[in-house]
Amino acid sequence: MISTSNPISNTKVTVAYGDGIGPEIMDATLRILDAAGAKIEPEVIEIGEKVYKSGSKAGIQPSDWESLRRNKVFLKAPITTPQGGGYKSLNVTARTTLGLFANVRPCMAYSPYVETKHPLLDLVIIRENEEDLYTGIEHRQTNQMTQCLKLISRPGCEKIIRYAFEYARAYNRRKVTCLSKDNIMKMTDGLFHRVFDEIAAEYPDIEKEHWIIDIGSALLADEPERFGVIVTLNLYGDIISDIAAQIAGSVGMGGSANVGDQCAMFEAIHGSAPDIAGRGIANPSGLLNGAIMMLVHIGQGEVAAQVHNAWLKTIEDGIHTGDVYQEGVSKERVGTKGFADAVIARLGQTPEHFKTISYAAAPKPIHISSASQTPQKKELVGVDIFLDWNEGTARQLGDAISALSDSPLELKMITNRGVKVYPDGVPETFCTDHWRCRFKGKAGLDGALDKTTIWKQLALLNEKGFDTIKTENLYTFDGEVGYSLMQGE
Amino acid sequence: MISTSNPISNTKVTVAYGDGIGPEIMDATLRILDAAGAKIEPEVIEIGEKVYKSGSKAGIQPSDWESLRRNKVFLKAPITTPQGGGYKSLNVTARTTLGLFANVRPCMAYSPYVETKHPLLDLVIIRENEEDLYTGIEHRQTNQMTQCLKLISRPGCEKIIRYAFEYARAYNRRKVTCLSKDNIMKMTDGLFHRVFDEIAAEYPDIEKEHWIIDIGSALLADEPERFGVIVTLNLYGDIISDIAAQIAGSVGMGGSANVGDQCAMFEAIHGSAPDIAGRGIANPSGLLNGAIMMLVHIGQGEVAAQVHNAWLKTIEDGIHTGDVYQEGVSKERVGTKGFADAVIARLGQTPEHFKTISYAAAPKPIHISSASQTPQKKELVGVDIFLDWNEGTARQLGDAISALSDSPLELKMITNRGVKVYPDGVPETFCTDHWRCRFKGKAGLDGALDKTTIWKQLALLNEKGFDTIKTENLYTFDGEVGYSLMQGE
Repeated sequence: MISTSNPISNTKVTVAYGDGIGPEIMDATLRILDAAGAKIEPEVIEIGEKVYKSGSKAGIQPSDWESLRRNKVFLKAPITTPQGGGYKSLNVTARTTLGLFANVRPCMAYSPYVETKHPLLDLVIIRENEEDLYTGIEHRQTNQMTQCLKLISRPGCEKIIRYAFEYARAYNRRKVTCLSKDNIMKMTDGLFHRVFDEIAAEYPDIEKEHWIIDIGSALLADEPERFGVIVTLNLYGDIISDIAAQIAGSVGMGGSANVGDQCAMFEAIHGSAPDIAGRGIANPSGLLNGAIMMLVHIGQGEVAAQVHNAWLKTIEDGIHTGDVYQEGVSKERVGTKGFADAVIARLGQTPEHFKTISYAAAPKPIHISSASQTPQKKELVGVDIFLDWNEGTARQLGDAISALSDSPLELKMITNRGVKVYPDGVPETFCTDHWRCRFKGKAGLDGALDKTTIWKQLALLNEKGFDTIKTENLYTFDGEVGYSLMQGE
Repeated sequence: MISTSNPISNTKVTVAYGDGIGPEIMDATLRILDAAGAKIEPEVIEIGEKVYKSGSKAGIQPSDWESLRRNKVFLKAPITTPQGGGYKSLNVTARTTLGLFANVRPCMAYSPYVETKHPLLDLVIIRENEEDLYTGIEHRQTNQMTQCLKLISRPGCEKIIRYAFEYARAYNRRKVTCLSKDNIMKMTDGLFHRVFDEIAAEYPDIEKEHWIIDIGSALLADEPERFGVIVTLNLYGDIISDIAAQIAGSVGMGGSANVGDQCAMFEAIHGSAPDIAGRGIANPSGLLNGAIMMLVHIGQGEVAAQVHNAWLKTIEDGIHTGDVYQEGVSKERVGTKGFADAVIARLGQTPEHFKTISYAAAPKPIHISSASQTPQKKELVGVDIFLDWNEGTARQLGDAISALSDSPLELKMITNRGVKVYPDGVPETFCTDHWRCRFKGKAGLDGALDKTTIWKQLALLNEKGFDTIKTENLYTFDGEVGYSLMQGE
């Protein structure tokens, strides 16, 4: 369906038609790209519900997975992930396995053609895509407590933050805003903020700012026009992406890119909308906007701009699908096919109300090189040993452990849910069956600990009837403490 | 300053004047309470900047801490926590140490008197206050990776969710909405959602719903009028509380309660605003709204309603401090003292535009009893051992560990940042120096593992040059898996 008159210069693109409204909007999108002269050669794979139900927990066959790895560019319509049954989100798998570390979500208000309380909203959210609580590492080790690990790495922070600044430069954005919660999570979110400050210093032409995520989200919800590029961690990015799309009124219009060092995936931000599937009324704009980002990524910025401008003109001209149709504002209600025809008819035209788009400054994908890090000297100085214990008060527990003779390490403190309860706790503190005991080397024993003392401590505790459930070693790095301190420590 | 004409029935309340605008707004608040006939006896303590700088890292002297524990009711003006220097947030300490598990934040639009895009906003956020990522347990164990623990307990979930339903009943709210991210965090957020469903079943008179936090936040930002009571985890609650207050236009007007089984703390949601301190222009409404919640809590609902109605009448009458003053809407610009005088002058009056408040149905504090839990049978079935390793590919690591003879346990899989990289990884996956190795009992060995096999495995790995940094035991509970499964497991 895409022109193959000049096959040599065509870029192979893996294409999936997906579920629900997917096939309709993909047809419309590819038809527009074809008419605009996009030099792409689609390689169609099947993903989604049918594949899940045929027994693939991942929703994709191995041979189709190879297509992604080979072509490195993926245009993906929405899919339906069946509920329950241990099916894995294909999006999550693709992002993490293919190293698509950056989720890029432009978000814009199209007022007055699309209703919104925030007509000046025009921002891009760059969300870290691989780390944070989304690594999915959870454990239950006592009757009462469940735990999830939040993982934040320095290279992960560096890649996403550098990407944000490079993006700002390529797309003429003047400001990058960082959102984190580093007043509470001083090590993990603190690392993100610190790396942001380091990298921002390399981009003196771009304004930088940082907000605590709660205040930042509130400002975004109330005054989104104050933001340009926002870079943030995975969970926060998930939340604010939805806020921005919703208040822009453009959930049905947004496209999204997931970009890695080698591969990239482009899609609509909305789902497969099975309730309106097959009726020919779906708005193809979201996927089309994803495809426009794809064209820029593969170096076809001119075609991308042509499609984008024709699409803007169509919106301006009031040719609207039902989801954004407004009596008195819209001129003509069209279906999926009619909308695509209208965009095609306007190829070569530029918008009058909206600004004309040019991708001349951003013709290529943004490549980020990972800085190699000088390793710091790591020294073992103690261990947090976690217990499952439900037989008394914090003081009883602390006194019993402190009284153990032959203890290779010294008990410094106990916390329950992070609150210091021994020594010097108060009875008002609510305690669960999940206790953290911090052990360090005995006074007088200087220098790094030997790891065998930890196993001896574990063996002793268990021998005395304490149920050890997990350990976290305590380290210093070039002498700097690598663990959060407790009250009074 | 508060009437002591009938000292026997007065309730002792610990009061702190705080920093910045704190003393002015506390004066105004107590003057209004006095005029309304509140039966309270303030016991004044000093907290905040001066106390921090005198050397108390906690910002409160031990004797003043005893006042809180004795009186169990705390009316607190905003304080300034000095930056840096290891000072602990007094709020966080008070919440966790005194077991103030529920943060209660009513949020309302006062349109047209206070400008907002959401005139129908009228909701209450009930935020879990003790758990989640705010337990502050962070570790760095490799050069690249930092980690924070997210802790969610069943009793923690039960208390806050039961509180939310009891609150809804006491304050005539018809719907409780739960927000979580249980599609990603199936164990931690999954527990919260599951407990919500369990407890909701005990309140058939109250409508219940659940939204994934990203969609829920987007709806809150766009259509807040659809919510009544929202109950959610600590981090999400932090974010949406700020969103709701901001879009209501009422950051300067909101009060907040932190409530536990025994103690409770009442305050304004805003900070100490040092830039306008001492000028007599601060809006005392936030602290006053906190004090109204306190009066209800100590059983003085009639006085609370009287103050609340007089305050609403003052707002309606256009008597406004500078922060909410609007030309053409406001009638008179007043300072802190003038505003308090206006409220006092209206005691006994009821609002005309706003609904008259009555606390007749909620005369007492809400008490929650913790349900005792039948413990499930826990069985050790394996261990996740985390390594600091930077010497090659995932396959090299996996093959080396698999080849260890005398290994007491069997290597099942390796993940890096949650992505399965061994066996059957792909080279596109970006790997850090932080590896999780999942070990289980060897085939043929049935039943629960002995913990000593874990220490033997640790000893073997270290002997062979692998740097073990943390462990997470794997358990089943009544046969149900107590850890997240990896792809293909």
